[in-house]
Amino acid sequence: MKKFYVGIAGIIEKEDKYLILRRSNEKDFLPNTLEMVTGRLEENEPPELGLLREVKEETSLDVSIIMPVHTGFFYRGGKEFPMVFIMYWCLYKKGQVKLSWEHSEFVWMAIDEILAEKELEKFHDMFKKVSRLKKHLPEDFLL
Amino acid sequence: MKKFYVGIAGIIEKEDKYLILRRSNEKDFLPNTLEMVTGRLEENEPPELGLLREVKEETSLDVSIIMPVHTGFFYRGGKEFPMVFIMYWCLYKKGQVKLSWEHSEFVWMAIDEILAEKELEKFHDMFKKVSRLKKHLPEDFLL
Repeated sequence: MKKFYVGIAGIIEKEDKYLILRRSNEKDFLPNTLEMVTGRLEENEPPELGLLREVKEETSLDVSIIMPVHTGFFYRGGKEFPMVFIMYWCLYKKGQVKLSWEHSEFVWMAIDEILAEKELEKFHDMFKKVSRLKKHLPEDFLL
Repeated sequence: MKKFYVGIAGIIEKEDKYLILRRSNEKDFLPNTLEMVTGRLEENEPPELGLLREVKEETSLDVSIIMPVHTGFFYRGGKEFPMVFIMYWCLYKKGQVKLSWEHSEFVWMAIDEILAEKELEKFHDMFKKVSRLKKHLPEDFLL
């Protein structure tokens, strides 16, 4: 079947720091690991709306989407769960972080801290992409 | 069902012009209309590999992917065909355009020509995004 689950994820930037979350112990997949906001599109849901919904549900923040920066594919658990994912770079707009049951902790980290953190290794490429873009784009750039 | 078909598409740039194709009369969906390289991911296929496969099949060109620039959702035909799509900006590497049965014509167009072409109206936002990025990024930039 040429159909996929679609994951969306957000690298949320606020004053040159990025929101990192720890998955709850209650999660069935990768409990207790560090990540960004992530989620899965609902039926017939456009990806950017799905991302804003997930950001709100998981952090209660309002953000603007700067642009998509990374796409990929993986199996979430087993072969019956093929997932295409799209990672967006987002800019903090307003609100205070309030976590849902899905996460147990949050921290705002600078890129060099993230790139030094072994637990975030699988996300390093995505943060390097954000870093490469930031070298050239104006601060208020939204694609 | 929270599953989607995943469409991938490529805006291929060569010397500040972009490859526009005309869909064949034989296509079941939107015959005879202008578009870029587009396709659908095969079972378990990562999106960037799927894009390079489609570019090769439809144009015989080799390209580098610069970055994803646009994502969206639509129904291809009916409600039973929900599709998430990812549009990538690509840089021509080598080869000469050879069309498959899927297209009847091709032309390389400058962005201002594309933005003046009514038949390409639904792609204008994506080309404006490429144009905004090009203002800031170095010529050889690959994300």
